[in-house]
Amino acid sequence: MKRIKVAVLPGDGIGPEIVRQAIKVMDAAAERFGLEITYKEALIGGAAIDETGVPFPDETKEIVLSSDAVLLGAVGGPKWDNLEFSIRPERALLGLRKLLNTFANLRPAKLYDELIDASSLKPEIIKGVDIMVVRELNSGIYFGIPKGIFVDGDERVGINTLRYKEHEVERIARVAFEVARKRGKKVTSVDKANVLEATVLWREVVERVHKEYEDVELNHMYVDNAAMQIIRWPKQFDVIVTTNMFGDILSDACAMLTGSLGMLPSASIGGKIGLYEPIHGSAPDIAGQNIANPIATINSAAMMFTYSFDMPEVEEAIDKAVRSVLAKGYRTKDIYSEGCKLVSTEEMGDLIAEEV
Amino acid sequence: MKRIKVAVLPGDGIGPEIVRQAIKVMDAAAERFGLEITYKEALIGGAAIDETGVPFPDETKEIVLSSDAVLLGAVGGPKWDNLEFSIRPERALLGLRKLLNTFANLRPAKLYDELIDASSLKPEIIKGVDIMVVRELNSGIYFGIPKGIFVDGDERVGINTLRYKEHEVERIARVAFEVARKRGKKVTSVDKANVLEATVLWREVVERVHKEYEDVELNHMYVDNAAMQIIRWPKQFDVIVTTNMFGDILSDACAMLTGSLGMLPSASIGGKIGLYEPIHGSAPDIAGQNIANPIATINSAAMMFTYSFDMPEVEEAIDKAVRSVLAKGYRTKDIYSEGCKLVSTEEMGDLIAEEV
Ligand SMILES: CC(C)[C@H](C(=O)O)[C@@H](O)C(=O)O
Ligand SMILES: CC(C)[C@H](C(=O)O)[C@@H](O)C(=O)O
Repeated sequence: MKRIKVAVLPGDGIGPEIVRQAIKVMDAAAERFGLEITYKEALIGGAAIDETGVPFPDETKEIVLSSDAVLLGAVGGPKWDNLEFSIRPERALLGLRKLLNTFANLRPAKLYDELIDASSLKPEIIKGVDIMVVRELNSGIYFGIPKGIFVDGDERVGINTLRYKEHEVERIARVAFEVARKRGKKVTSVDKANVLEATVLWREVVERVHKEYEDVELNHMYVDNAAMQIIRWPKQFDVIVTTNMFGDILSDACAMLTGSLGMLPSASIGGKIGLYEPIHGSAPDIAGQNIANPIATINSAAMMFTYSFDMPEVEEAIDKAVRSVLAKGYRTKDIYSEGCKLVSTEEMGDLIAEEV
Repeated sequence: MKRIKVAVLPGDGIGPEIVRQAIKVMDAAAERFGLEITYKEALIGGAAIDETGVPFPDETKEIVLSSDAVLLGAVGGPKWDNLEFSIRPERALLGLRKLLNTFANLRPAKLYDELIDASSLKPEIIKGVDIMVVRELNSGIYFGIPKGIFVDGDERVGINTLRYKEHEVERIARVAFEVARKRGKKVTSVDKANVLEATVLWREVVERVHKEYEDVELNHMYVDNAAMQIIRWPKQFDVIVTTNMFGDILSDACAMLTGSLGMLPSASIGGKIGLYEPIHGSAPDIAGQNIANPIATINSAAMMFTYSFDMPEVEEAIDKAVRSVLAKGYRTKDIYSEGCKLVSTEEMGDLIAEEV
């Protein structure tokens, strides 16, 4: 029997309730596939600030580092928005990514056919969209130094530094090509190599790594053009690989295409321990009402089985369960449309767990 | 009689043919409104590289600096794509913006009702979209130093620097609020203040300047969320003000919403001499075929009358002429749909000039 230790960080807002549903589904999968999963819960984000004064307490770090994988709900909310920059909930997220060395953030943006009408794009434009954004997550302008607000003569100046070392580009490019091999065999590398020297180096290194993956097609696109093409004809993309900042922007754009934010998961990999979280936020306005959509978190847990435990069959089983529940017409409020059956967060979790 | 000196930089690809149509329309406007416009042409981009070896020759700089306003076609093309970074056509564009001190790039993304079906978004989502993106154009990561590719131990590192001084944010914020006052009285400032210190300062300064414009509504949005909201519900935006890099990305996304790239102009202002150019590129694949859409350039020339010569009535007249020609069913190839009358670049220029 395979034994798995999962650190569970519910976080803020709807975090706790959606994470609870994901655990139900993981337990169902454990039973079906003969796994033993133990969970250890810890504080993060605003919840941690309220209890301990800091967003990412040492105890949480310890629990995370002694786990095999981490499941995160969401962090942040208006309650902590006016805190000083250095102790805001988001610091915990960046700290966690850095601690775990998860330099590759995989964000699938896949259309659920049943939800095609929820998109703001025309059905013929988005039908069949299935993009995997591979975002660099441990470097770039998110972490480069110098950064901060400094005094310069009689005024202040705000500074951040975009920095990529060759090996950082190499390893993320490799992840992108590997992922593409198992999918549509096409990588689009997004940069701004006509303006930013850092991405001139990026492009050069991606081309070099590509030599090891000649079965995969590679093209380059400037980030402004990519923002257009994602809206114009998203089906042209298979895997998009890009920097931390561009990935933040473009992965959200890709997610929004599908019109189903409440469904989309993410996996952050590359270190020993993977981090899995929904792409949506903590939605404080609907927290605690049992109406949030738990599917993004359930899908994130599903990715954990593929990327942390090399059991893609479990991800498939969960994915099938989700699709079957949707096909039967069950919907949480955010994806509800006429003629469907409205269910709560808990009910949706139960339904999917049963199907698994 | 008002005398106006315009520097004309046709540039590459379709640049020369579309600029020619804009001049026709300006001449028609001059006649109607009693202006005397003189034009002085100069080389830029690839055309300049071919003749002089550099993308932005001194002679061009002189002509530009002795003009009242600059009309630019487009620069670049595959022919010059493999040149070394420092002498590529794009350098000319950045050099020109810096030389002219045009720190504010205004990019209207306005839907033409006649072209609503060309959008990839649903008609009910985009009908009535009218966004003005105010992009900072003289600073930020486009110009910050240090930048370049350096050696760091046994590998290379690519570096760019995001830098904003208080006065740089102040002046662009002021432009945004002024523009909003004449429009929908709402400014959305886009930053990444939860991660980038440079934009923490940005947000703070925008709030300070807002105190002088309390009749204008201000809200802040993170750039990733903005990329989503532009796709989800673009009608929520009136004026968007943001950094050079974010503005590059988001203005292209906004433009693509409308489905009519060939129609959209831009104005770069803030210095003594304004710069006007279409937002589309040089389209080398269709250059010289007399099929390009000249309307974006014509609309850019129209903006020149408002922003450089304080004659909004001329812009209105040109805008009316464009709409009337569209209403009569004339279309260039890029915006053609069944039942319309297909016209060439030249013919479109003639039709609009006549209407003016
Ligand atoms: C909350 C924020 C720090 C974070 C990021 O920018 O990475 C979020 O937008 C994300 O994409 O996970
Ligand atoms: C060509 C390039 C340098 C330029 C930019 O990035 O500013 C272009 O994309 C634009 O938006 O005008």
